[in-house]
Amino acid sequence: MAKAKNILFIMFDQLRWDYLSCYGHPHLHTPHIDALAAQGVRFSRSYIQSPICGSSRMSTYTGRYVHSHGATTNAVPLKVGEMTLGDHLRPLGMGTWLVGKTHMRADADGMARLGLAPDSIIGVRVAECGFDVFERDDGMLPEGPDGSYDPEGARTYNEWLREKGYESDNPWHDFANSGLDEDGNVLSGWFLKNASEPANIDEPDSETPYLTGRGIEFIEQTQEPWLCHLSCIKPHWPYIVPEPYASMYGPEHLLPPIRGENERGGHPIFSAFQDSIVGKAFSRDDVRQAVLPAYMGLIKQVDDQMGRLFGWLKDTGRMDDTMIVLTSDHGDFLGDHWLGEKTFFHDSSTKVPLIIYDPSPEADATRGMVCDALVESIDLAPTFVETAGGEVPDHILEGQSLLPILHGKAQDTDRQYVFCEYDYGPSGIGHKLHSDIRKSQMFMIASKKWKLIHFESGDRPMLFDLENDPQELNDLGESNAHAEVIAGLYDAMFEWARRPSQRTTLSEQQLIAMRTSSRTRGIVLGVYDEDEYPEDLTVKYRNRKARPFSTLVRDD
Amino acid sequence: MAKAKNILFIMFDQLRWDYLSCYGHPHLHTPHIDALAAQGVRFSRSYIQSPICGSSRMSTYTGRYVHSHGATTNAVPLKVGEMTLGDHLRPLGMGTWLVGKTHMRADADGMARLGLAPDSIIGVRVAECGFDVFERDDGMLPEGPDGSYDPEGARTYNEWLREKGYESDNPWHDFANSGLDEDGNVLSGWFLKNASEPANIDEPDSETPYLTGRGIEFIEQTQEPWLCHLSCIKPHWPYIVPEPYASMYGPEHLLPPIRGENERGGHPIFSAFQDSIVGKAFSRDDVRQAVLPAYMGLIKQVDDQMGRLFGWLKDTGRMDDTMIVLTSDHGDFLGDHWLGEKTFFHDSSTKVPLIIYDPSPEADATRGMVCDALVESIDLAPTFVETAGGEVPDHILEGQSLLPILHGKAQDTDRQYVFCEYDYGPSGIGHKLHSDIRKSQMFMIASKKWKLIHFESGDRPMLFDLENDPQELNDLGESNAHAEVIAGLYDAMFEWARRPSQRTTLSEQQLIAMRTSSRTRGIVLGVYDEDEYPEDLTVKYRNRKARPFSTLVRDD
Repeated sequence: MAKAKNILFIMFDQLRWDYLSCYGHPHLHTPHIDALAAQGVRFSRSYIQSPICGSSRMSTYTGRYVHSHGATTNAVPLKVGEMTLGDHLRPLGMGTWLVGKTHMRADADGMARLGLAPDSIIGVRVAECGFDVFERDDGMLPEGPDGSYDPEGARTYNEWLREKGYESDNPWHDFANSGLDEDGNVLSGWFLKNASEPANIDEPDSETPYLTGRGIEFIEQTQEPWLCHLSCIKPHWPYIVPEPYASMYGPEHLLPPIRGENERGGHPIFSAFQDSIVGKAFSRDDVRQAVLPAYMGLIKQVDDQMGRLFGWLKDTGRMDDTMIVLTSDHGDFLGDHWLGEKTFFHDSSTKVPLIIYDPSPEADATRGMVCDALVESIDLAPTFVETAGGEVPDHILEGQSLLPILHGKAQDTDRQYVFCEYDYGPSGIGHKLHSDIRKSQMFMIASKKWKLIHFESGDRPMLFDLENDPQELNDLGESNAHAEVIAGLYDAMFEWARRPSQRTTLSEQQLIAMRTSSRTRGIVLGVYDEDEYPEDLTVKYRNRKARPFSTLVRDD
Repeated sequence: MAKAKNILFIMFDQLRWDYLSCYGHPHLHTPHIDALAAQGVRFSRSYIQSPICGSSRMSTYTGRYVHSHGATTNAVPLKVGEMTLGDHLRPLGMGTWLVGKTHMRADADGMARLGLAPDSIIGVRVAECGFDVFERDDGMLPEGPDGSYDPEGARTYNEWLREKGYESDNPWHDFANSGLDEDGNVLSGWFLKNASEPANIDEPDSETPYLTGRGIEFIEQTQEPWLCHLSCIKPHWPYIVPEPYASMYGPEHLLPPIRGENERGGHPIFSAFQDSIVGKAFSRDDVRQAVLPAYMGLIKQVDDQMGRLFGWLKDTGRMDDTMIVLTSDHGDFLGDHWLGEKTFFHDSSTKVPLIIYDPSPEADATRGMVCDALVESIDLAPTFVETAGGEVPDHILEGQSLLPILHGKAQDTDRQYVFCEYDYGPSGIGHKLHSDIRKSQMFMIASKKWKLIHFESGDRPMLFDLENDPQELNDLGESNAHAEVIAGLYDAMFEWARRPSQRTTLSEQQLIAMRTSSRTRGIVLGVYDEDEYPEDLTVKYRNRKARPFSTLVRDD
């Protein structure tokens, strides 16, 4: 084993923290991911910064809170000025490559303002969230009456499928994400009832094996130190999986939803999410029974592909010098709390699996450890910078490196709280509530003990006691007995909101050096007489001679 | 009179709000500025966003709070991604030009990251805070043992002076900002005792007449619509002025300092500012007696130059189509509250003169009006955009246009509070206090009634009752009777701190349009059966045909 030369940064999309056997799922066995955890550190309290793909990822890739980078929901472009992983790692000699999804929307206006050509190296990197692109695949080519949400989605994958014989304009939809009936009708995976169908695709041709293969291809042909962001769309919807995974799980394998009748009809914003199409759908037993086996099958396939990948890395000696990070961008409610999808703040959505395997001997002491430190996804960027041999620019990156934990030098992070944010203003919920676009933000602050959810709408907060109510079923937001707890969490959120998150152009060392530098560069303030002040600081202003201006030869 | 075609945006540096006769100074008569006020609107409660040159200006030029743009004190580069006046006005057909000072420090690292050549048009604009430069003159060429705080300072002015016969390496210092004794010794204006000397320069060659002339030259040679930022360094230190202004004011013209013995030895941070070199100096009567006549003389000269400028504009017909805005970047304590300089939050420092003359007929109704609305310097950018015929991009600009007030359509702004910030971490105060660089920020929130100062250091807040104690002599920060007032102001500051200030890449209209757009672009969420959902939204997923994958001709 050696110090990590490369970083394989694996992200799955919408993978719940508790749907892996190493995290406790009793029926979904994921031996390959479990084996990685046994060789590394498994974090049991890792939170994402936003319960939606784009914003969560922008935080991960920038190492900054959503409130700092401003890409508050999907399709909000990340500002051209925000630095990303590539900006931090390339100067350290580490290439920063993408194989898969980012959900990045380029800041075209910002690029135009600065004259950045979209086809220049810098332009492409800025548009691709700092990555050099081996393959960009956001994993979706939806089709609607007004066109596609992502016209470039699944482009390369679709070409590859067509070359393989899958005849369709959109084989991503018609084969990889749909079933087929006996009459040749496509059973679209967009409709949840079809989740129980096997996808009409040869399993090795489906998305997770395809992207895993592309990751292997990238690694095989790359020599210089690299970070490879292998970013797979599944188990994200459309929920549908080919055989043999389609038939692996039945009703006996499903965990019951985490929910209580008392959760309904309470808080107005929470209720609005429950009353949304997805909330209502996932509150139905038939929906859960159709979807969950497919979701579990997708994860089982993920695990098998990780087995393929880790085996190949081992066979080629690369486990010896490659750090492997495996995580998710958020979870999936799957009916918990009468919600579907992810855009709320219970652990089902905001907590994610995070496993880090560091090949270096320093990490031997922690192999197989489970760490309950409060971790945020913004911690990955500084972890990568430190792994690549750099100093963490903590005036830009807001997380903290996990290397001290990985190397057994620390048991915990320094933080007392994690933060998560969601902006429902531009969403269907905002539409339904006719919400003020400036007052549609929600903030979560959580310690190991408490979780508070704040609503900009002016509605009361929600509060959960994570120790005594780990399933978050009893909202204490109206409890007078908890007024002090709530006030304390608000104080901490206020302090967080005041942090100097935009003071990014100078390091703390540079700022401290400024404390005395204006004096030594001639700024003399409040000195009545030069003799009151150190002579070396004023020497340049002493003993100067001039002529009265009236005697000068003037050139008027 | 016509709608304003051009905008003359005049800023003085360190000009107190109350050192003009139209703002009530009993001895300092400023008839030319008063005349402008009589033709326009004079704002009596205009606050800057930071009590220091650079940060205040970055807020004015970006239209954003310091907490948003991050240039928290002088010499902190403004991020390359921040948009400035030129970005907003040039697309509206209005050139955006600088004649004078900005205190801009270019974000060289950010420019290098994006490959912006410093000599390209875009590069120069980004480096110059969005302006095209007719003349950059930050008004200082200090000289210290480690070089100059601003090596480029006063470069063009110094060349001009040398051409005129002022023999020196640094005539800005040796002539414009120093006196001379009978033996030919330069009496440096950096030392306050020399403030009572006349500057050794022919008055028309001193800085304010020079820059005013440069402004006239710019206007004379420019045809297309322009905003001209005529930005003069005086009455900023070095406090020294040539005759006849040097002899105009004596002890009988000085206002007593606004201060009380009760203000000393109280709050630890406030005390640290009082105990600084400038605080102690300006608490001395001899210092005030030396400096104030020079400060007043500099302002009297400013007024005479404004008379020259406004007369010329009138004679050339330009008063008919030029909006004129006259303001300052902050005030000067001059011994008030036992402080010198400006870096604290009493009105002596944070309130500035603001006069806006709009030539358009719509403004006839308000000529000569005094408006007591709460105004912030970030309001100027939206005012300019609206004057140039644009729609205010209020997802970027955080202020509000003052045109409704200027046109008599509103009596007030919408805001209840103004905000001001200062970061003493990188300053001499930070050095003296050994302060945590992340905990050295101070925030001010003020309504028409109250002013609260918050310290990140953990020290208690300060509170002033502006109605009953307009001189801010009685700090109520420890008053139990005001606990509710303090809590209310903190709530408002917290709300402000949570604003989505970085969500700048999409307008509110675009964000609202997103509420329904993913549905019409093929994202189908939570739909069990297609028949449960509008057919037009799912039509593309219906009636599709495919073959079983097993029957396809595979290209393996």
